[in-house]
Amino acid sequence: MTDELLANNTRYAENFTGPLPLPPAKHVAVVACMDARINVYGVLGLNEGEAHVIRNAGGVVTDDEIRSLAISQRLLGTTEIILIHHTDCGMLTFTDDEFKKSIQDDTGIKPGWAAEAFSDLEEDVRQSIARIRTSPFVPTKDSIRGFIFDVATGKLNEVV
Amino acid sequence: MTDELLANNTRYAENFTGPLPLPPAKHVAVVACMDARINVYGVLGLNEGEAHVIRNAGGVVTDDEIRSLAISQRLLGTTEIILIHHTDCGMLTFTDDEFKKSIQDDTGIKPGWAAEAFSDLEEDVRQSIARIRTSPFVPTKDSIRGFIFDVATGKLNEVV
Repeated sequence: MTDELLANNTRYAENFTGPLPLPPAKHVAVVACMDARINVYGVLGLNEGEAHVIRNAGGVVTDDEIRSLAISQRLLGTTEIILIHHTDCGMLTFTDDEFKKSIQDDTGIKPGWAAEAFSDLEEDVRQSIARIRTSPFVPTKDSIRGFIFDVATGKLNEVV
Repeated sequence: MTDELLANNTRYAENFTGPLPLPPAKHVAVVACMDARINVYGVLGLNEGEAHVIRNAGGVVTDDEIRSLAISQRLLGTTEIILIHHTDCGMLTFTDDEFKKSIQDDTGIKPGWAAEAFSDLEEDVRQSIARIRTSPFVPTKDSIRGFIFDVATGKLNEVV
């Protein structure tokens, strides 16, 4: 499958115009779930060069997202943060204990990290925002907004 | 700026057809830098629903990327991994010590995490692949390929 995607890249490069500047033009950083159905550039109407995009299983905020946001704001001038979780998320389908036990059963080794599963989408968006708000390493917190992407409609619904 | 992007979302949703299935149709997971100039769906010609996309500052592999890859492979059936670093990366412009010292000077607190800066793109792609290869938590390692995206040409160049 990788080779098929590389053939797509050859076509993409044919119409590519670059290079654009390194700092994101819209001064926005997005933290979204890795889910295949969330095309972040499409969902937000972003063009190349406009926003940092950070993604992981769940769209949660761990030390690595704080690291990325710290670099984004401190070195590359972003000032707004958009968090995106989504309906029908895989993270709603298991618990940390179950997942880590299954890995231990399979490999003999229990991960030292949290799986970050959750049972309530809105609560986890608020949890992710709270982790950013309490971090001393992310300096600009004036605009941190969280959304749930609806995989049936394509719409972002804000968590308030 | 966030409100402008939400207006874009309204237009995106007008032509949206869903929902698609949860597991990625192409069984691929991508780990890429958060850089604003890398539109992963565009670069690889991906459609919604085809691949997990994991992104962070540098496109590096830390515990959180291992967590995401473990969930991607063990629960959602992906089997191939594509790593994407890129030319003109911000991670080439500082060192961990400098960045952490600047945060300590600003906030009084030194981050407990590594900033994951690097001085050689190809070496860091290999480092990221090596971290996946040595992880017991990522079960399928038959297709792990690393690339450097050229921000001037839009092309992916493989690191061998």
